[in-house]
Amino acid sequence: MLEINPARLWQSLMDLAQIGATEKGGVRRLTLTDTDRRGRDQFVAWCKEAGMTVEVDGIGNIFGRRAGTEADALPVAMGSHLDSQPSGGKFDGAYGVMAGLEVVRTLNDAGIRTRAPIEVAAWTNEEGSRFVPTLMGSGVFAGVHPLTEVLNQKDVEGISVRDALNQIGYAGKALPHKLGAYFEAHIEQGPVLEQTKTTIGVVQGALGQRWFDVAITGQDSHAGPTPMETRKDALLAASRLVIEVNRIATAFPDYARGTVGFMQVEPNSRNVVPGEVRMTVDFRNAKDATLSAMVEELERNVVSIEKETRTEITLQEVVYFPPSEFAPDLVDSVREGSKKFGYSHRDIVSGAAHDAVYMARIAPTAMVFVPCEGGISHNEIENARPEDIAAGCNVLLHAVLGRAGSA
Amino acid sequence: MLEINPARLWQSLMDLAQIGATEKGGVRRLTLTDTDRRGRDQFVAWCKEAGMTVEVDGIGNIFGRRAGTEADALPVAMGSHLDSQPSGGKFDGAYGVMAGLEVVRTLNDAGIRTRAPIEVAAWTNEEGSRFVPTLMGSGVFAGVHPLTEVLNQKDVEGISVRDALNQIGYAGKALPHKLGAYFEAHIEQGPVLEQTKTTIGVVQGALGQRWFDVAITGQDSHAGPTPMETRKDALLAASRLVIEVNRIATAFPDYARGTVGFMQVEPNSRNVVPGEVRMTVDFRNAKDATLSAMVEELERNVVSIEKETRTEITLQEVVYFPPSEFAPDLVDSVREGSKKFGYSHRDIVSGAAHDAVYMARIAPTAMVFVPCEGGISHNEIENARPEDIAAGCNVLLHAVLGRAGSA
Repeated sequence: MLEINPARLWQSLMDLAQIGATEKGGVRRLTLTDTDRRGRDQFVAWCKEAGMTVEVDGIGNIFGRRAGTEADALPVAMGSHLDSQPSGGKFDGAYGVMAGLEVVRTLNDAGIRTRAPIEVAAWTNEEGSRFVPTLMGSGVFAGVHPLTEVLNQKDVEGISVRDALNQIGYAGKALPHKLGAYFEAHIEQGPVLEQTKTTIGVVQGALGQRWFDVAITGQDSHAGPTPMETRKDALLAASRLVIEVNRIATAFPDYARGTVGFMQVEPNSRNVVPGEVRMTVDFRNAKDATLSAMVEELERNVVSIEKETRTEITLQEVVYFPPSEFAPDLVDSVREGSKKFGYSHRDIVSGAAHDAVYMARIAPTAMVFVPCEGGISHNEIENARPEDIAAGCNVLLHAVLGRAGSA
Repeated sequence: MLEINPARLWQSLMDLAQIGATEKGGVRRLTLTDTDRRGRDQFVAWCKEAGMTVEVDGIGNIFGRRAGTEADALPVAMGSHLDSQPSGGKFDGAYGVMAGLEVVRTLNDAGIRTRAPIEVAAWTNEEGSRFVPTLMGSGVFAGVHPLTEVLNQKDVEGISVRDALNQIGYAGKALPHKLGAYFEAHIEQGPVLEQTKTTIGVVQGALGQRWFDVAITGQDSHAGPTPMETRKDALLAASRLVIEVNRIATAFPDYARGTVGFMQVEPNSRNVVPGEVRMTVDFRNAKDATLSAMVEELERNVVSIEKETRTEITLQEVVYFPPSEFAPDLVDSVREGSKKFGYSHRDIVSGAAHDAVYMARIAPTAMVFVPCEGGISHNEIENARPEDIAAGCNVLLHAVLGRAGSA
């Protein structure tokens, strides 16, 4: 049975991780910086070594292309991103791109030609650390964001995406093109696979997300002389809200998640009853209707919290991603590949957004998850086991080959 | 019936408020600064105009003294402080000192001599904004803090209390002396008197205080991929604790108060489950046993919160003030004075610490509270009504006169 070369894949990941390597073993390769440029150059060089043609589009997405035997067949694409968080790891994004490259190398070694062309995509600025929005390159490619609008986005130093692309030489001319299918291999970034000792996550889709900015207004007052019953404690209201968000996410079905990750208290002094709190709410769910029901339940409870704490609470929605369901036949091919190799596998959803979420809007899409150590990512200590990395790539290889068809 | 001169008292307060006046109508007169020096100089000048002798002790406390007819009688003292918060008001502290001065002026005008000497004290650094500890001058006078230790305390710029005292010329030589009684007039700094339309608060004592620094350690993780049941959300634990602190303070008797005024979340990013929270707990109660019971109940509940949220919580006690009970006969004299003038009055406790709390350890002590607008203090908009300010001073006058005895 056709298998990828585990050592070569691992070595490519480690070589790539040298570009922007941090002291703690992580990677800092912020999008469209010179470090990112070096990562891109390395990827392009490897693509060419593997006999692929390379194109760059207007937002800097890179496509390595291995020709198929049928000129008109839509390409079967793989990919992910090369940019990292400010203190990121070696695998987030890089794995999906290097796994795609390894699939091509394996096909080359085996002398296999495919009916449909095969592409390996490196999407620009998935992380959104330097420029917003996140998933920028795949968003432009999928027609979610107009190119010119995104090119005008600026980082904190006032440098535009357009200027940054020009500066690193990745402002390309290629136009968006149609894809026959899209596969993305990725570390899970969560604990489920590791905790259940599972090698392959068969990703059903990605959770929908609704994000809110919350402002709570009470009245700051002296902690000593102010009796409990006359207080307007914004932090008490905020705490009630945190518990409510967690209760809702625990009570609702369909992979419900609810997080308050950010909170700022004013005046934040130990002997002053807080008069103001700003916080965030992040709700996720696999089903849009359930996601809406979670939000409605929170909004209902906000009214009672306001009344009981004598505060005013405003919720403003700032992000909405609908849930994405991946293509059932592609998802099946990931499951079948796992079975073929005897890898333990389980159905899973992606709690985070990935470039695949936008690809799913324009092409049949699936993802392959592999475990990462402690479920940790977006961190320099992010880690994964070579055997899992290889397993995910083997599954990817067979799924892609099945879709592209041996010639 | 002997009455103070309301216009003169008000004018002295307004004149004093010119020293360090802020644009928003407040006062910034940080302890031992040149602004504080000007406030002190003004007070000393007024004392001398009123025929008092003036002494300054080693920590810069100022004592204006009006002689009594009995050479051995212990002085009956009044006072408070002249320093303010960085953005303070016109009345906090200043009122107690100016009211003492007005009592002396009134006795002078009426030609009344007293058996015991009368003193007006201005205690150094009550606020603790520039140098810790708070209540510095009264603490040294009452023997709570050794003088040399306190003189070595430094502000954020590295200037010691000793140097600051020398620089403004208020490093005195007077030694602590015995007091026969101590009275302090003060704005309430809380909402009770205003809300109950009461003119005089007959202060029974001050709440005891136990302050804690709390550290909560969970595990930060990605808000999307991390299922609710595996999270170690430090902010969820912190929120449970906030609600517990408020529940305990509402459930316990004896003027129980509980406040979480400060909270800091790490990494404080909207799509990351918080791994760490630092927060504070401020418990107050009129009875030491009840105060301890509140702490014990919190500690018990911390154990269940830890278990249920899979976090670790440490509480470290950083401040303990036992409750102070004021002298019943002096408290009675405040109540009687209110009745004599027909002022509405009610028993009240001081939720905040005052210099009177330390005086209560070495002499019979009482306080007179008057309402302040909206219960607000430590703020430039701190305000009080002239008629209430005058009423409190009338009550003070008669309480002091009763204790010092007409000669």
